Amino acid sequence: MDKQQIGVIGLGVMGKNLALNIESRGFSVSVYNRNRIKTDALLIAEKQKNILGTYSIEEFVNSLETPRKILIMIKAGKPVDDAIEKIIPYISKGDILIDGGNSFFMDTIRRNKQLEALGFNFIGAGVSGGEEGALKGPSIMPGGQIDAYKMVEPIFTAIAAKVDGQPCCTYIGANGAGHYVKMVHNGIEYADMQLICEAYALLKGVIGLSNEQLHDIFMEWNSGELDSYLMEITSEIFAQKDNETGGYMVDIILDSAGQKGTGKWTSQSALDLAVPIPTITEAVFSRCISALKDERTLASNILKGPDTVFEGDINEFIESVRRALYASKICSYAQGFALMKAAAVEYNWELEYGKIAKIFRGGCIIRAQFLNKINDAYENDANIKNLMLDSYFVDILNSYGKDLRYVVSTAVNLGIPVPGISSALMYYDSYRSANLPANLLQAQRDYFGAHTFERTDKEGIFHHEWVTDNK
Amino acid sequence: MDKQQIGVIGLGVMGKNLALNIESRGFSVSVYNRNRIKTDALLIAEKQKNILGTYSIEEFVNSLETPRKILIMIKAGKPVDDAIEKIIPYISKGDILIDGGNSFFMDTIRRNKQLEALGFNFIGAGVSGGEEGALKGPSIMPGGQIDAYKMVEPIFTAIAAKVDGQPCCTYIGANGAGHYVKMVHNGIEYADMQLICEAYALLKGVIGLSNEQLHDIFMEWNSGELDSYLMEITSEIFAQKDNETGGYMVDIILDSAGQKGTGKWTSQSALDLAVPIPTITEAVFSRCISALKDERTLASNILKGPDTVFEGDINEFIESVRRALYASKICSYAQGFALMKAAAVEYNWELEYGKIAKIFRGGCIIRAQFLNKINDAYENDANIKNLMLDSYFVDILNSYGKDLRYVVSTAVNLGIPVPGISSALMYYDSYRSANLPANLLQAQRDYFGAHTFERTDKEGIFHHEWVTDNK
Repeated sequence: MDKQQIGVIGLGVMGKNLALNIESRGFSVSVYNRNRIKTDALLIAEKQKNILGTYSIEEFVNSLETPRKILIMIKAGKPVDDAIEKIIPYISKGDILIDGGNSFFMDTIRRNKQLEALGFNFIGAGVSGGEEGALKGPSIMPGGQIDAYKMVEPIFTAIAAKVDGQPCCTYIGANGAGHYVKMVHNGIEYADMQLICEAYALLKGVIGLSNEQLHDIFMEWNSGELDSYLMEITSEIFAQKDNETGGYMVDIILDSAGQKGTGKWTSQSALDLAVPIPTITEAVFSRCISALKDERTLASNILKGPDTVFEGDINEFIESVRRALYASKICSYAQGFALMKAAAVEYNWELEYGKIAKIFRGGCIIRAQFLNKINDAYENDANIKNLMLDSYFVDILNSYGKDLRYVVSTAVNLGIPVPGISSALMYYDSYRSANLPANLLQAQRDYFGAHTFERTDKEGIFHHEWVTDNK
Repeated sequence: MDKQQIGVIGLGVMGKNLALNIESRGFSVSVYNRNRIKTDALLIAEKQKNILGTYSIEEFVNSLETPRKILIMIKAGKPVDDAIEKIIPYISKGDILIDGGNSFFMDTIRRNKQLEALGFNFIGAGVSGGEEGALKGPSIMPGGQIDAYKMVEPIFTAIAAKVDGQPCCTYIGANGAGHYVKMVHNGIEYADMQLICEAYALLKGVIGLSNEQLHDIFMEWNSGELDSYLMEITSEIFAQKDNETGGYMVDIILDSAGQKGTGKWTSQSALDLAVPIPTITEAVFSRCISALKDERTLASNILKGPDTVFEGDINEFIESVRRALYASKICSYAQGFALMKAAAVEYNWELEYGKIAKIFRGGCIIRAQFLNKINDAYENDANIKNLMLDSYFVDILNSYGKDLRYVVSTAVNLGIPVPGISSALMYYDSYRSANLPANLLQAQRDYFGAHTFERTDKEGIFHHEWVTDNK
């Protein structure tokens, strides 16, 4: 019997759909699931397909051609370690284990090292796109041994989403690089969603637009520079009604959001690497504050807002919100890409930011036209310090800056929280400030803790005797 | 020979000064340092004192009365584990090891557990106040076995700072509670300093105040509700000149700030516990952005700010900055105390927030009159959900809210970055919003990932079929 070309362990939503996707591109697949019910269900539902069901790890591994390619699609964390441990006794040197889950990148670095020491390859692959993406074409961010990647590349590029004929899959870098980039992708996604929500809050709260109007506006915005999957589905969401009550779905859904970890990890990693990503972090914190529904309801009766009324022009305001949204999106992506740049230095990865932007264009949640502009920026200057310094983005920021200020000051004066948009403006204003008040901060630290400081007029490390003797 | 009452390992700045402080209160002390030079130097400089120098761990341990009290004052991290390992062979069951460094609270939880299993007590004590505090009276935040704490309490309360006759030391809770509270203290300190720096940037950038004027204004502010150590030293800093150039020190210091870890840890822990602390986090990120001096200088020539001119009343603006500073300080402390509350649940600590506020009043960097108001708030309602809901703070926030909005919108329109103050306002506005736009966010998540949502009209978990068949 011929051996299968790849195996998939774990037949949850993602694993099952990836297996089907792989098979649909002409590759033979073995599958294994700890509980055989899912295996049987898949085989019964898809009986004509070139998918081999196996019922033990040994049978699964032995069904694969060597070097074996084993895609692990199970819950991140300890389950992945447990699965690897169970596979190891049956595989041979040179075989390739691939973790396609949302694993923490430090775990991937560790596993890559441990498995390499045993003679095995380990690829940590970020896979974005949810259920539909897994089946029809996800964005794939693989990291690990480059030679091993080359062997799975034909399968990965075949199953990935395509944009302009190019697969949304590229080798990211060694060990944990793929999962790191996937993590930052998710952090950026958090910010994108939060910024859209704030635009909604402004259009609804300041000028009282209806859901029909919001549907139309987001549809219109989606035909311009904001063109993206998230704008598209946002527009659609505003049109949808609840079958049961006949009301709009968006008005029936509770404003209390969950978070699953990757957004949080992105902020925590940025803190470790001392890279400012305030907009992504405000997006995470905004979800946390949204979850405090009871406290907010209580506070709304105690803490007062302003009684200011909006007196501007409605159409002008709508266009300013659009521009503010685009400008803050640029600031937020600038943060995410600056973070990847710092991580590349810290973890010795050679990341190609233009290519990364390109594979975000299809399959994944943040797919957008705009990513071509990021690719262009890195093609113009691969070492650009910050995306905000690229000429296209400079032009946008310089021309939309006044809209950003208008929108934030309107929100501030009317009491509408826009933590994401305002943090983007603060990032922009901080970044373009040759001088910040941190000189005072350094003076304070030197005053109370002798932490020392640098001077503006000469090199070196200095301390001042702040407390004079006669005190 | 009589045994000594307590021993100090590690004679760096903090260890040496704590040993001198302890001795000055009438307790006998043994000291040990890995390198004997520091031990000898201390004994020579302080020869009349009741301090016993020892030159091996064994000699050090044997010089102490039982149960031994050993204060470890060395660099946080692995060195603490190494020291503990070296001490263990010589100590007896019931002895008390005390880590007085800035250890990460999870390390303290682990060490407490490991040592307790061996029959030893372990106290993790946050010690705040820098060199001067260590010598004259720090704020002490001890966590660990309560019975062990009772045995060191006479020494701790004797050496601690005193406010209104009360020592700035109280038992915080089990295992890592003391180091956790110290960590949050430092996070709050980061925010306090950042907010003061932004007030400085506003007074200098918007209305062009001189250092002399800033000195006077901060001195005046320090006599009112902002009365605090940081206001006091800020006022003094503006008066100080550089001996070498004759210029003001504050103008000579480079605006590039460092950060040592505890601020970052506070934000990372908040992310783990899903507690929003945007102002503390913006303070950490602001230090990171300040460190990008070269990038900022470059960007300042490329990215434009507004050319708006301030046209308001100068004295009104100054008073609004003062009120905005106080209001954002309240929001920032509310975040820090909400974080401690969540940590208490997560780690099973019984924290007494009023007592914690009281021990912050002396010895440490954030000491301020204002902390009495926090103590009052918890005395009125020990279970208050958020400090912003206490009647005193409600009155301040409701009356200073308009100043906060005025200051932030002025900064926004003039292009002066105020990430801390604006994040405090956004926190305030988010917290007092019965409705946030997270309903749209939940719709998006359910649309692309079937993450489900709750409804406003009934209990349960729901999913909507967003994509209709005819699409």
